[in-house]
Amino acid sequence: MVPHELDEVDRGILHMLQEDARNNVASTIAEEVGVSPNTVRNRMERLEKAGIINGYHPQIDYERAGYQLHVVFVCTVPVSDRKRLADESLGIEGVIKVCEVLSGHRNLTIEAVGSDSDDLTAIAERLEALGIEIHDERFLKNVRTQPFNHFGADVIEDG
Amino acid sequence: MVPHELDEVDRGILHMLQEDARNNVASTIAEEVGVSPNTVRNRMERLEKAGIINGYHPQIDYERAGYQLHVVFVCTVPVSDRKRLADESLGIEGVIKVCEVLSGHRNLTIEAVGSDSDDLTAIAERLEALGIEIHDERFLKNVRTQPFNHFGADVIEDG
Amino acid sequence: MVPHELDEVDRGILHMLQEDARNNVASTIAEEVGVSPNTVRNRMERLEKAGIINGYHPQIDYERAGYQLHVVFVCTVPVSDRKRLADESLGIEGVIKVCEVLSGHRNLTIEAVGSDSDDLTAIAERLEALGIEIHDERFLKNVRTQPFNHFGADVIEDG
Amino acid sequence: MVPHELDEVDRGILHMLQEDARNNVASTIAEEVGVSPNTVRNRMERLEKAGIINGYHPQIDYERAGYQLHVVFVCTVPVSDRKRLADESLGIEGVIKVCEVLSGHRNLTIEAVGSDSDDLTAIAERLEALGIEIHDERFLKNVRTQPFNHFGADVIEDG
Amino acid sequence: MVPHELDEVDRGILHMLQEDARNNVASTIAEEVGVSPNTVRNRMERLEKAGIINGYHPQIDYERAGYQLHVVFVCTVPVSDRKRLADESLGIEGVIKVCEVLSGHRNLTIEAVGSDSDDLTAIAERLEALGIEIHDERFLKNVRTQPFNHFGADVIEDG
Amino acid sequence: MVPHELDEVDRGILHMLQEDARNNVASTIAEEVGVSPNTVRNRMERLEKAGIINGYHPQIDYERAGYQLHVVFVCTVPVSDRKRLADESLGIEGVIKVCEVLSGHRNLTIEAVGSDSDDLTAIAERLEALGIEIHDERFLKNVRTQPFNHFGADVIEDG
Amino acid sequence: MVPHELDEVDRGILHMLQEDARNNVASTIAEEVGVSPNTVRNRMERLEKAGIINGYHPQIDYERAGYQLHVVFVCTVPVSDRKRLADESLGIEGVIKVCEVLSGHRNLTIEAVGSDSDDLTAIAERLEALGIEIHDERFLKNVRTQPFNHFGADVIEDG
Amino acid sequence: MVPHELDEVDRGILHMLQEDARNNVASTIAEEVGVSPNTVRNRMERLEKAGIINGYHPQIDYERAGYQLHVVFVCTVPVSDRKRLADESLGIEGVIKVCEVLSGHRNLTIEAVGSDSDDLTAIAERLEALGIEIHDERFLKNVRTQPFNHFGADVIEDG
Repeated sequence: MVPHELDEVDRGILHMLQEDARNNVASTIAEEVGVSPNTVRNRMERLEKAGIINGYHPQIDYERAGYQLHVVFVCTVPVSDRKRLADESLGIEGVIKVCEVLSGHRNLTIEAVGSDSDDLTAIAERLEALGIEIHDERFLKNVRTQPFNHFGADVIEDG
Repeated sequence: MVPHELDEVDRGILHMLQEDARNNVASTIAEEVGVSPNTVRNRMERLEKAGIINGYHPQIDYERAGYQLHVVFVCTVPVSDRKRLADESLGIEGVIKVCEVLSGHRNLTIEAVGSDSDDLTAIAERLEALGIEIHDERFLKNVRTQPFNHFGADVIEDG
Repeated sequence: MVPHELDEVDRGILHMLQEDARNNVASTIAEEVGVSPNTVRNRMERLEKAGIINGYHPQIDYERAGYQLHVVFVCTVPVSDRKRLADESLGIEGVIKVCEVLSGHRNLTIEAVGSDSDDLTAIAERLEALGIEIHDERFLKNVRTQPFNHFGADVIEDG
Repeated sequence: MVPHELDEVDRGILHMLQEDARNNVASTIAEEVGVSPNTVRNRMERLEKAGIINGYHPQIDYERAGYQLHVVFVCTVPVSDRKRLADESLGIEGVIKVCEVLSGHRNLTIEAVGSDSDDLTAIAERLEALGIEIHDERFLKNVRTQPFNHFGADVIEDG
Repeated sequence: MVPHELDEVDRGILHMLQEDARNNVASTIAEEVGVSPNTVRNRMERLEKAGIINGYHPQIDYERAGYQLHVVFVCTVPVSDRKRLADESLGIEGVIKVCEVLSGHRNLTIEAVGSDSDDLTAIAERLEALGIEIHDERFLKNVRTQPFNHFGADVIEDG
Repeated sequence: MVPHELDEVDRGILHMLQEDARNNVASTIAEEVGVSPNTVRNRMERLEKAGIINGYHPQIDYERAGYQLHVVFVCTVPVSDRKRLADESLGIEGVIKVCEVLSGHRNLTIEAVGSDSDDLTAIAERLEALGIEIHDERFLKNVRTQPFNHFGADVIEDG
Repeated sequence: MVPHELDEVDRGILHMLQEDARNNVASTIAEEVGVSPNTVRNRMERLEKAGIINGYHPQIDYERAGYQLHVVFVCTVPVSDRKRLADESLGIEGVIKVCEVLSGHRNLTIEAVGSDSDDLTAIAERLEALGIEIHDERFLKNVRTQPFNHFGADVIEDG
Repeated sequence: MVPHELDEVDRGILHMLQEDARNNVASTIAEEVGVSPNTVRNRMERLEKAGIINGYHPQIDYERAGYQLHVVFVCTVPVSDRKRLADESLGIEGVIKVCEVLSGHRNLTIEAVGSDSDDLTAIAERLEALGIEIHDERFLKNVRTQPFNHFGADVIEDG
């Protein structure tokens, strides 16, 4: 996999999207980065096609939304099945995120949300049925994100 | 913390946003959920104020973007400092996400991105300087997300 | 599972029972909570039927009673068998308590009492024969309990 | 500590109490064990004074009662402070049970109940403030108990 | 297993043997304990028959004797096979001591001596061939022993 | 430390002592090894002076002797204090054996015997007071030993 | 740190050196790679200056050379001191290799060789005196190496 | 395996090779050690035949060479297959070093180099396909080596 070469425009766009992927519309981004809105739209399309941008998501506080149990299942799978099992576990009701980890043991983490312990048990049973070995269930409390600051904050500030 | 009571409209909106927080504009959501675009905008404002929605983010594949090292630092901090240290660690260059974990040891996970091992060492040194004890550095490969399926998929499908 | 909605009377009753489930008879509880003894009896029946109260037990110091070895076996079982194996392990001579734990590994803890190491070995062998994997045997020394103080201590104090 | 010598009457009484510490009143026990109710009362008083019986408690399903989070904190304290810290941690709101464990690390387990993650964080902070090091927070789902079957089941069956 | 009741004479004898099991001959012990040499011999025979004394061994410093590698293999076996596998592993060349441990994992420790890493590998292979799972190999440096001081030191001092 | 060079006579003697350090008196050993009893006595004196033989001990089954709790404390000490702390911990009542382990963590194991949990707690407190960190308390059940079979079994068999 | 761009000649040279860094002299390498010996010498100088080649070492089997104990100390140091402590630990007699590991705990591994356990203890004491926390001492048996096969094997084969 | 007896000349040669296995040619070593170049060559041949010297290698900084990911896979294999699997894993593209470790679990470490996470995943899959269980993937940053200083530094200094 050869990494895609990003220029300053790409980086400025990524930065603006990380700050607010919904309300920073093409024209706002264009103005900050100093290119036309059409360029923004073309570049975003290119970034999406290159697999650099894989969607746009709201950051949700599940506990406030009435789903008290927000957990990460720390799991082990055979390396040769990791990709397939990552895909399949996304299909389980309540699962919201899956990460492959470069490790032997504990090489797959699966984030899920439930409203009570029965929900979590149902998810765990389905993971097991896929042949996934669960080591830990870790309970999350608050999740904070922010833009990756190697992307073009400087571009914007100079824009 | 009393959880916010979500109705079907809220859930339908959350579902549509999880599917695509950028391109599912108010009118698209309105049509699917069966309410007016204004109702969508009012509800979204309410969900944001209630702290249920905390921003909108692109899902980025850092490795493809030329940042090869995408890691999670698994850390321990005193419980009474966890909230403050979570906030402060967000200020470190390269850190993109922080989760509080309900545990004694390993109660804070910090996600970061770098282009080489010097970047990661710089981040680790700054975490240490904050008084954060790092246990592990876990290297991520692929990250997949999907809508939380207890939210209003049914609403949409019936809409 | 929708949690049962407890009112102040229920909570006052639960508090009094936690303080002394034997000597706090219905009339004593009634007087403290400020209702009739019949109400106490009706409510207790309801709490029992709802599965909120699951029996009344003496707290026993097994070491003083001549059973020196009071242990907790920390075990792993498949999640899908956890409920069944929890039930079956209760049938083993010497086992006094079983807890399901929301985890992958170490998801079942089994408390047992014996007078010598042969007793414990016999219990461990029977657990193994059920297909339960034992990780640790932890030896308990003193056990202390107290009422859960979110239940109606205030009700009683105002009563 | 010389263990108290239990005879068949004591064991029969303990067995009956473990079956139902509330509804098995002295006369019921007396009949089953084959002694007078006064003997039952005298023996129980003796067992309480000897520290063999340390109270009578309802078995409560906290999740059904609306307290979703029933956890065990697995902790380490200096052995010389274990007894004192066990006592002090019982004074924390939400703590319902404390066990000393014969071990170096992980030598104190503290069971607590809360309705959300803020409750658990508050308890963890107070444990830390006492100088208790928390390793794990384990979430319990179901708890089952039963009489210790080395006590006088045979006495009762022959009674 | 009902423990053998030891009186002061037994304990004095055990103490003298622990101090020096070879040079403390019956008459020396007899004089210290205040009984006849014949009593010492009878009691020792009784202690051996009761399985309380299981042999007399020199304490050897293997490293000084030219066997540099003195290790403990920390192993896991099924509880139901522990006794049999403990016996069988004693038959392996180089093994000098085996302890059963009351635990699930790591429930058998096997002490062995070798002159180079090939010796240890050969022992490890034979343990594996018996179905024993080896977790750790721990290398010992110095071993010190002393009499168990609850045995009759007082008897001797008063003798 | 230059290891002592053992010849066939030394090895035959060591073998005979390992089989039975008490009843295999000099004349018995002499006959088996094919030397005079005086040679046996001289060689044994030399082996003792070289620190190869460090005493003669009975193998005691403490559980049968009424001391139910036979434990190994697995401990960590600074390497530079390991030797001194090994010596000092031998002075604690109930401690019967101490091994230095070539490791960083868990580099000292301390074997002790007690009749109840208070005995073990007292020992653990005294270890802590010496500055020894205790990780685990492991409970032993049966201990078996046998002669180290690289020593002169062949010498004896040919004798 | 911008990685040095290697061309086919560099890679061919690296490959030949990995196969035999001593006997593959410049003229041999030159012939295989298809350049002049002077080019080989110039390129090697450049690779050394760029810090890509950091010396040439024999692979030694220490056990065969009479140094029975070849160990890896697995250690933890503060990240901000890791580089300095790695350098300083190289100065300890017996230490032959030090690796920095991208991790929090266990972030420094130190390989050392000794002829007996006193040697290893002396090394461990000096590491501790530097402030290095040792977790494990792992004993190595055989070490095998081979050329990194992404380097110019193809260049050579085509040469 | 009887260790090869090294004399001062051997040790001086080994020391000179460890300092620089490429540029310290036979005549340079001869001069320092105080023997003829022919003796140096003969001795080196003998050391190679005895398996004490197993090749000559450059120390390469893979990260600077554009291979960002330099990892150690910490693995477990059956002891009886360890030697064979160590050999076979050397045949995997990207693997550069394999060490057998005297342990039960984590008894094989495999060092490899890759340019991205796909390379490492491919290596991990091939290790798994050989039946090797991978526990950890540890990422190396800097590697430093130096001559083993028990070899003849003194010989050289006196030379």
